[in-house]
Amino acid sequence: MIIVMKQSATVKDIENVENRLLDLGFKTHPIHGDIKTVIGAIGDKRLLNVHAISQMQGVETLVPIMKPYKLASNELQHTPTVIDIGGVKIGGEEIVVMAGPCAIENEKDFVDTAISVKNSGAKILRGGAFKPRSSPYAFQGLEEDGLKIMVAGREATGLKMVTEVVDTRDVELVNKYTDIFQIGARNMQNFRLLSEVGMTRKPVLLKRGLSATIEEWLMAAEYIIAEGNHEVILCERGIRTFETITRNTLDLSAIPAIKDVSHLPVVVDPSHATGNWKYVPALAKGAIATGADGLIIEVHPNPPCALCDGPQSLRPERFKSLMDELRLVAQAVQRTI
Amino acid sequence: MIIVMKQSATVKDIENVENRLLDLGFKTHPIHGDIKTVIGAIGDKRLLNVHAISQMQGVETLVPIMKPYKLASNELQHTPTVIDIGGVKIGGEEIVVMAGPCAIENEKDFVDTAISVKNSGAKILRGGAFKPRSSPYAFQGLEEDGLKIMVAGREATGLKMVTEVVDTRDVELVNKYTDIFQIGARNMQNFRLLSEVGMTRKPVLLKRGLSATIEEWLMAAEYIIAEGNHEVILCERGIRTFETITRNTLDLSAIPAIKDVSHLPVVVDPSHATGNWKYVPALAKGAIATGADGLIIEVHPNPPCALCDGPQSLRPERFKSLMDELRLVAQAVQRTI
Amino acid sequence: MIIVMKQSATVKDIENVENRLLDLGFKTHPIHGDIKTVIGAIGDKRLLNVHAISQMQGVETLVPIMKPYKLASNELQHTPTVIDIGGVKIGGEEIVVMAGPCAIENEKDFVDTAISVKNSGAKILRGGAFKPRSSPYAFQGLEEDGLKIMVAGREATGLKMVTEVVDTRDVELVNKYTDIFQIGARNMQNFRLLSEVGMTRKPVLLKRGLSATIEEWLMAAEYIIAEGNHEVILCERGIRTFETITRNTLDLSAIPAIKDVSHLPVVVDPSHATGNWKYVPALAKGAIATGADGLIIEVHPNPPCALCDGPQSLRPERFKSLMDELRLVAQAVQRTI
Amino acid sequence: MIIVMKQSATVKDIENVENRLLDLGFKTHPIHGDIKTVIGAIGDKRLLNVHAISQMQGVETLVPIMKPYKLASNELQHTPTVIDIGGVKIGGEEIVVMAGPCAIENEKDFVDTAISVKNSGAKILRGGAFKPRSSPYAFQGLEEDGLKIMVAGREATGLKMVTEVVDTRDVELVNKYTDIFQIGARNMQNFRLLSEVGMTRKPVLLKRGLSATIEEWLMAAEYIIAEGNHEVILCERGIRTFETITRNTLDLSAIPAIKDVSHLPVVVDPSHATGNWKYVPALAKGAIATGADGLIIEVHPNPPCALCDGPQSLRPERFKSLMDELRLVAQAVQRTI
Repeated sequence: MIIVMKQSATVKDIENVENRLLDLGFKTHPIHGDIKTVIGAIGDKRLLNVHAISQMQGVETLVPIMKPYKLASNELQHTPTVIDIGGVKIGGEEIVVMAGPCAIENEKDFVDTAISVKNSGAKILRGGAFKPRSSPYAFQGLEEDGLKIMVAGREATGLKMVTEVVDTRDVELVNKYTDIFQIGARNMQNFRLLSEVGMTRKPVLLKRGLSATIEEWLMAAEYIIAEGNHEVILCERGIRTFETITRNTLDLSAIPAIKDVSHLPVVVDPSHATGNWKYVPALAKGAIATGADGLIIEVHPNPPCALCDGPQSLRPERFKSLMDELRLVAQAVQRTI
Repeated sequence: MIIVMKQSATVKDIENVENRLLDLGFKTHPIHGDIKTVIGAIGDKRLLNVHAISQMQGVETLVPIMKPYKLASNELQHTPTVIDIGGVKIGGEEIVVMAGPCAIENEKDFVDTAISVKNSGAKILRGGAFKPRSSPYAFQGLEEDGLKIMVAGREATGLKMVTEVVDTRDVELVNKYTDIFQIGARNMQNFRLLSEVGMTRKPVLLKRGLSATIEEWLMAAEYIIAEGNHEVILCERGIRTFETITRNTLDLSAIPAIKDVSHLPVVVDPSHATGNWKYVPALAKGAIATGADGLIIEVHPNPPCALCDGPQSLRPERFKSLMDELRLVAQAVQRTI
Repeated sequence: MIIVMKQSATVKDIENVENRLLDLGFKTHPIHGDIKTVIGAIGDKRLLNVHAISQMQGVETLVPIMKPYKLASNELQHTPTVIDIGGVKIGGEEIVVMAGPCAIENEKDFVDTAISVKNSGAKILRGGAFKPRSSPYAFQGLEEDGLKIMVAGREATGLKMVTEVVDTRDVELVNKYTDIFQIGARNMQNFRLLSEVGMTRKPVLLKRGLSATIEEWLMAAEYIIAEGNHEVILCERGIRTFETITRNTLDLSAIPAIKDVSHLPVVVDPSHATGNWKYVPALAKGAIATGADGLIIEVHPNPPCALCDGPQSLRPERFKSLMDELRLVAQAVQRTI
Repeated sequence: MIIVMKQSATVKDIENVENRLLDLGFKTHPIHGDIKTVIGAIGDKRLLNVHAISQMQGVETLVPIMKPYKLASNELQHTPTVIDIGGVKIGGEEIVVMAGPCAIENEKDFVDTAISVKNSGAKILRGGAFKPRSSPYAFQGLEEDGLKIMVAGREATGLKMVTEVVDTRDVELVNKYTDIFQIGARNMQNFRLLSEVGMTRKPVLLKRGLSATIEEWLMAAEYIIAEGNHEVILCERGIRTFETITRNTLDLSAIPAIKDVSHLPVVVDPSHATGNWKYVPALAKGAIATGADGLIIEVHPNPPCALCDGPQSLRPERFKSLMDELRLVAQAVQRTI
């Protein structure tokens, strides 16, 4: 921690700050510049009540030196995390594609879609049984019935499954059915829910909040890991910007940025990011070329009739041809699908 | 709902859209412009699966005509909602000030602060027993012990109390103690939590999400009201912008905007918005002059030692002099404190 | 400047950085923490090619200690700047109101409006002769004819005038007519234009860019002052956020923030910020209560017929009653209008 | 144009709006819904003073039906624009790479870099002679001397050149030297400068503004095209978001979005977007896989010594290996470099 003193700080102010830091168990290293003094404080910041210092007379600002996340950082764990879900590995050389409808509507359609995406090369089945909708009047999901339908899809195909949980009270129930928990963008800072899935031993697909920074996203991952669950998959799904042609702005630069500071795998959701199926293939290819470890794509047999997010869903046949295109891009960056 | 057809839409495309709308129970009114055709669709949008239409051949975009919120809108309820909490009225001519520390730390300090803010003119006591913190390593609140301390503060002063709830599982517990539930900014779209407090019969102080639009905020209020709880107090607490000198950007224009479209009262939290006690008095005055129905201000006996958000807390004596300043501003806009 | 070394930096890396700093004429002060080393570098940062350092092996990040603006900062000039325009003082105890139409359309209307706003208490006449419009098909202003009309308004009333300049080639022309140059939000980082008005000796009303931080805004002021023109008036006019009910989001917290770091006066433009005349009175009052040194308000005799920004213009009679309301608020914060 | 009337609008209000529209030469088509009335207005919106209508009694909002840009839209021109710069074609099947240093510093280095990037496969030389810098104390470019050095680089290699112009007064001078004008992000809405380059007959590389929407960007292109210059190349260079790990957020979804609504070619600048050379290769590959028509990449022989933007510059050898990687990705999406 570096404490920057104001230009107008007096010798007495500086002394007071140093004494306070020493009381708190820090070692101090003042540097007297021509105009300002800064004080380096060495010790465990977690012990320090930083407000105690920032409020003192003559203090301009505090500059943290250590990153606020530890377990999600690659400063301690240098090798990338590879998450193995019964043989499907996320974070390794192979790119994993997750596919399925936004919401689960009925068993027949879901199983048909499951078989179709499996045949096209998907490894994980996605589908929503609990839906967080911005309107109380919109379809909220089939809840446990939806989970049972997902299981039917899994049994028919041998695929793994990922589904969202939106309430701490549902974690136990969802845990009985799913292979991977999904935490949605709006719940990225629902800290109780993060802790609750952190106490399970199932992988967690953690979507980035709509206006979260990468640091806040990694802090959310830290909440999960801090409870003992190390299997966190980060999912970039678009951030809110001023753009209106696309629903959100897919931030593909998050991929190299996360690889630079964390060991966690990153997958990309071009469907929710753009909100428009026409833009999904281009961005799915872009994500892979940029280095994503996986994709999560909405596929629906009849998008105009979907109860949720139809405009962003690919038809099964378009998904199939996209998978062929993706294999070429994966190969161009020395990976496989 | 207005359906805008593309310039390239064919007569057949337009006919198909009209037929689909008729099937869905709408009346249609096509308008053939020189370049584009638009179709007015009359009926209940809630019956309509809008995706069914937006995905059809030749459709450019859909334009909703009705606001997505109903119960929070002043289209149905024309008179402002006034919430009466045992005689303290929010939304009327009097401006209500809520004050207290960010987090509850111990009984003695809390009760002292309670007595002090009461003497300065506050009507409601604020304090956090459950804290949503972005780091798992930060102080998370005293939980039920904190609630009991708040009650002690209430008993010592006769003030009402407001406190945050962060988990659906805690609603019942918090309901036993509090007069007003607070839903924090990060939980503004935690729809399950909204429904849960909507099922109680206590007023809810609903903070605006960090990057929520006013429409999304009113949709969150709609979730609460739709469960039968009409007593929602909106709280503007700053939105995320690119500015870094202040923690967030207090959006005072939200006050006249909400008064324009909704009947719900609006209070302002200048402490969390700015993150800096030095800016709180100016913005508290600005909020009142702009038309706020109340303020929620952090007061702490010893800000440098606060376990949470010390830099934004006023000392009791500064709060007292601020209240005197606020009375003058309230008077200038024909209101009282 | 503080150089933060990576956790993985070697002793050799640290030595290399120190040597490079010494070569560049800095004094160095390394602080070896338990996990990371930071190096304090004392000297004139302007001499330093910071990239030279940030690119070196083992360097994590550079932290500047000094603010990038000097002349706009109150670190050197401690007393507030008061700008005297022929007796009208901006930045003193009196709040100065500037009023007039967005664009100048014809002499009769302009002079009538000028007389009206003068009678209501405005001190400065605003009007646009050169209009930056986002569409090439929109009205672009009357140019020199508009300036002449403004002068007629000034002569009829004795008010001072402010008008926008949008092109370096027009600075000389506008300088012949105006009392104050206005630099619009879209030109806040048109550095050549800033330098050009910096070379005149007329005050400059510098609007904040649509997504500029306060620091960037002060850097723009620095460009003007660096050319020798110290008379810069900052004008907060709303920033771009996700909100759509208002055109932009008026950032009133910029007022105390600027007073905290700069000596320059700040005025507020609630008309452009909200884009809606209905919200202007509330925010004008809020601006004054928050500490603004002035207001700039659009007034038009017949807003529905205005060629530009009619929806945000007040009618002269509404402006007159607003001025009465503003006087009460000014008085409540110990100022006058 | 659709006029949405308020729920509270009277029959008289609706009649008045219709009459006004008829006076303005529009045909009107009212649609009376169960709750609200909307009026379709057919005619040329450019004739309409929209404020005239939005301000009338009972009007809630206006909804434009036509896009505000015409010449930049693919509604009129259905085939993609291919710009031919002496044989180098932008917008066709081949992906064009532009490379060179941020600022031009001296002839030897520039010519060496030019030869190197040519050998690696770049087709266009980039370099800045006029630099828009946010600090008045930063290096502002070599101006005409810089242009002469660029010409030397062009002569030594046969490459084409692109360079920025920042002032209307310099357009004539820059026109004497350059093959392509660059308009920087901060000047995207410097409408006078847009018009000025629109009056030349050289292609214009138009960078997207830091917080511009795609529609605003296309409106800026419209300014250039409206002056008769159809050769506009759009350049996505990152938008401002809340993220801080990267300098800006590269919006690759802008590529399919622009292809969807415009005929203009799009190139991508991963160097300025990320501000970090380490992230440039991943995003360069991502851009190509997403469908970019070209790239503009900073290359500097000795990044730590660059006078401008060193941290984002690739060394020539890294650029060379990147070009090899890019060829594989281009091939995977059926294009060439």
